[in-house]
Amino acid sequence: MYAIIYIIGIFLRYAIIVSMRFSKTFVKTLREAPKDETAKNGALLTRAGYIHKEMAGVYDYLPLGLRVLENIKTIIREELNKIGCEEVLMSSLQNPEPWEKTGRFSDQEVDIWFKTELSSGGTLGLAPTHEEPITELLKSYISSYRDLPLYVYQFQTKFRNELRAKSGILRGREFLMKDLYSFHTSEEDLNRFYAEVEKAYGRIFERLGIGDLTFETFASGGIFSKYSHEFQTLLPVGEDTVYYNADKSVVLNKEVLNPEVLTDLGVSREDLEENTAAEVGNIFKLKFKYSEPLGLKYIDEKNAQKTVYMGCYGIGVSRLMGVIAERFADNKGLVWPESVAPFKYYLVGIGENGNRVAEEFYAEHKTETFFDDRDSRPGEKFADADLIGLPYRLVISDKTLAENSAELTNRQTGESKLIKLSEI
Amino acid sequence: MYAIIYIIGIFLRYAIIVSMRFSKTFVKTLREAPKDETAKNGALLTRAGYIHKEMAGVYDYLPLGLRVLENIKTIIREELNKIGCEEVLMSSLQNPEPWEKTGRFSDQEVDIWFKTELSSGGTLGLAPTHEEPITELLKSYISSYRDLPLYVYQFQTKFRNELRAKSGILRGREFLMKDLYSFHTSEEDLNRFYAEVEKAYGRIFERLGIGDLTFETFASGGIFSKYSHEFQTLLPVGEDTVYYNADKSVVLNKEVLNPEVLTDLGVSREDLEENTAAEVGNIFKLKFKYSEPLGLKYIDEKNAQKTVYMGCYGIGVSRLMGVIAERFADNKGLVWPESVAPFKYYLVGIGENGNRVAEEFYAEHKTETFFDDRDSRPGEKFADADLIGLPYRLVISDKTLAENSAELTNRQTGESKLIKLSEI
Repeated sequence: MYAIIYIIGIFLRYAIIVSMRFSKTFVKTLREAPKDETAKNGALLTRAGYIHKEMAGVYDYLPLGLRVLENIKTIIREELNKIGCEEVLMSSLQNPEPWEKTGRFSDQEVDIWFKTELSSGGTLGLAPTHEEPITELLKSYISSYRDLPLYVYQFQTKFRNELRAKSGILRGREFLMKDLYSFHTSEEDLNRFYAEVEKAYGRIFERLGIGDLTFETFASGGIFSKYSHEFQTLLPVGEDTVYYNADKSVVLNKEVLNPEVLTDLGVSREDLEENTAAEVGNIFKLKFKYSEPLGLKYIDEKNAQKTVYMGCYGIGVSRLMGVIAERFADNKGLVWPESVAPFKYYLVGIGENGNRVAEEFYAEHKTETFFDDRDSRPGEKFADADLIGLPYRLVISDKTLAENSAELTNRQTGESKLIKLSEI
Repeated sequence: MYAIIYIIGIFLRYAIIVSMRFSKTFVKTLREAPKDETAKNGALLTRAGYIHKEMAGVYDYLPLGLRVLENIKTIIREELNKIGCEEVLMSSLQNPEPWEKTGRFSDQEVDIWFKTELSSGGTLGLAPTHEEPITELLKSYISSYRDLPLYVYQFQTKFRNELRAKSGILRGREFLMKDLYSFHTSEEDLNRFYAEVEKAYGRIFERLGIGDLTFETFASGGIFSKYSHEFQTLLPVGEDTVYYNADKSVVLNKEVLNPEVLTDLGVSREDLEENTAAEVGNIFKLKFKYSEPLGLKYIDEKNAQKTVYMGCYGIGVSRLMGVIAERFADNKGLVWPESVAPFKYYLVGIGENGNRVAEEFYAEHKTETFFDDRDSRPGEKFADADLIGLPYRLVISDKTLAENSAELTNRQTGESKLIKLSEI
């Protein structure tokens, strides 16, 4: 018993209790999305009060939206910590120096830089990704083979100066990404960890509720590897085109649909079906691409200086929120998987008794419940419940109380049943 | 019992278990700080492996440093949620439009902007603060007196193009801030909430371990109020000068040290002692400063259109980490208060038995323990324990095991005692 209380104590240090009553939150559902919001995810998330558009590709996250982002981050963080990754937070402002060594500070080479001038002189960039600074940073901490392997990740805002950004939060000029970088003494060790990340990504997309829609996809590998892998979620509005065979054991990006690759993978064009998809993650064997120009070396067992092998592994966190919103929404509104939903229950009390018992339920289940305590008609509340898309609507009324129950409606299936209050 | 397991379940959703062994983390302590790091907080935090300098005023947060930041955020978040504040996340990229309405996009008016060009045309700013966008955002959600009051906050990176930034993480070009904005129908209601924030700030600084060093200080109020309040922590290297009387019930910033103010506050110059301090928070009654030019209005009970009263309330999160580091450090290294320390225990095993029992202890207390399991001499581990500055060093050796105990050393007082393993 003491052990349990002790454990609760530990968790309390990290647990933030956020309670949410509709009447108290500043967010309201909107009848219409802004006229310039053409993407379904952007329009629905705005109408349901999750996000607010600042400009094309730049959004604010309102209380419900921030909870979804945090839930996605928590799942990713748990799976990465399990395989030994360490979390850091790197800066957005970028010194050009390491980027100049790899040639990537040039606007010709990387055409989505936001750049700015330091008042004390000199140009800075806003990080569109972090390979160069993490490689440079690790030079302070890697010297011997004993320091390797290392796996370092962060959740950080990325800035990309996209010419067009019309896909809601699927393609942002400012967006949240998880980027992981790994450092190894050998290609075998890089391959071993790469396979671990593949599995971790599988678990992440499974837990996010898009496991059966998300496929590891062969894509072009760049200079050092024949292939990289993308994780593509089938999505009608996805910007990518993927080809897969019936059992989906081989999936490839259109960019590598050529005879050589088909031979490599042992499939023929006729076996492949075309679909659109959104890239939610990608993993790359970088090998020496950044460690060589930036001079990230280590001393091996025989006292010889060697170059560090690297891999990088991204997940688009805010994009995932958009993909999940877009993919599961129906004509009534959003439909969140339980693992990412901002709350589990959308609670409605009808009538005096219904509202009294709803208040009692809310007091006991605050962390899981969004309480629609507004002075509105039930029909309006039900419409907002559908729009906001929490997994379960819970209605307490005289009718349900006659059976000591509440009506529980599954947002996804629409099925309702009475459930004893004591059983929730 | 079921209730308890249920509660654990809820907390588990938010709890991230991070275990940390010195042998596995990429961070090492450094013998010397970078030569260009002249600030004590920056030098010590770098040597102890909490931060990494990218350029003057721009730092990365390494695993231990990120934990300190998150602990500070958790305390602030808990106290703000308690008084009904709602958390959001606004964008860094800023559309000039609302800033032009208040005159603050001009570099003459605000001289610390980082600006950048959108590839599709137009200049954007990187938010140095968020009054304009939050006021603009709330126009979508405030229409009636029934929508007020509202309290909205965020933790967000701020960008300020400082000409000089030589104070480690005390003054950043890119830094983490908590900014809260409140919205009201009347000055009385603004005053009421302002007083609630004053109390919440008091609790926050108390919990952060700097309560008795931090004073609410009269400062200049700008256009709409005679005074604003700063929260100043006494600090030898602080950039501000404050004056206080012996009992510290009146503290004022040098900028308002004039006869009129002294009369207002009923103190005379001779009663006041001078000290340097670092501003860790500030609170402002903005009244109509932003709501008037941006047109944030509401309809009152009599159907008349009125302008919304506003307040704003900042806390420098990364600066606080620097202030706490700088203030409590001694000649051996950092000394963290328990509430913000990345871990509670710095664990060292000596000899075969000591290490075996240390492993067992670590397995049971992972979330609170940083385990120095390196193959190093005890003296080296003790020096690093002092440098890293966790509240307690726990040493397990044959000698302590003879008494079924571990040696517990308080980092702050240096006092050691034997403590039964079963009592920890």
